[in-house]
Amino acid sequence: MSGQLPADLPRPPYWVAVLSSLRNGADPEQYAAAARRMRELAGQQPGFIAAESARTAEGFGISLSYWHDPESIAAWRDQVEHTLVREFGREHWYEALHVHIARVERSYRVEPATQASSSAR
Amino acid sequence: MSGQLPADLPRPPYWVAVLSSLRNGADPEQYAAAARRMRELAGQQPGFIAAESARTAEGFGISLSYWHDPESIAAWRDQVEHTLVREFGREHWYEALHVHIARVERSYRVEPATQASSSAR
Repeated sequence: MSGQLPADLPRPPYWVAVLSSLRNGADPEQYAAAARRMRELAGQQPGFIAAESARTAEGFGISLSYWHDPESIAAWRDQVEHTLVREFGREHWYEALHVHIARVERSYRVEPATQASSSAR
Repeated sequence: MSGQLPADLPRPPYWVAVLSSLRNGADPEQYAAAARRMRELAGQQPGFIAAESARTAEGFGISLSYWHDPESIAAWRDQVEHTLVREFGREHWYEALHVHIARVERSYRVEPATQASSSAR
C-alpha cells in the first residue's frame, strides 16, 4: 500500500486548522478540482506549513492545514478566492462542516517497526 | 451520500490529539478490530469528548480524539491495553505515524446551504 506521507513535523508551537465534514455527494469532479485549487492556493499563503486530508468512501472527511501562527489562518480565511469557494461549498457540497482552530503544543514521530520514537523538540 | 457526522463542538478550550498515518496494508481485519476496540476503550477514559477518523483507499489516514485537558491525553497514552496495541501497531501496521497534541482555541460550525455560521462560543 502506498499513498501520501504525513507532513513533516515543525517545531511547536504551531497551529492547525481542523475541518471535519460530511460531503453530500454533489458535484464530485467540481469539488475535487476546487479542493486541489484551494490546496494550491493555501500553499502560497504566508505562514502556511503543510496540509493533509483524508475522506472515507461514505463522505466523512478530515482536512488539516498547519500554520505558523493564528494570524496566518485568519488571513487565509479572508483570502478572496478562498472566501468565494467556501461560500459556494457551504451552499452546495456539505451536509455538515465543523472547524477547530488549535495551537499545537507537542508533536512527535512514531517510528515504525522499532520501539523508538523521536520527538520534534 | 451518508456517513458519520462531525462530532459535536465542545466549548473551547479543549484538546485534540491528531494522528496522521500511512498504513502499510498489513492485517486489514486485525487492524480494523483493534481500531474499533481502541475507539471503545478511549470512550471509557476520563476526559474523553469524541473521536473522528477518515482513511483513504491508498492508506493515508487522520484520526482525531478530543479531550477536556492534556492530562487526560497523557493518561490515555499510558493506559495499559492502549500501550500494548500501540506497540504492536508501530511494529506491524504503519509506514509512518505522526502525532500532534494541540489545544483548541476556537471552533465553529459552518451551516450548510445558508450564509450563516454559528460559533461554539
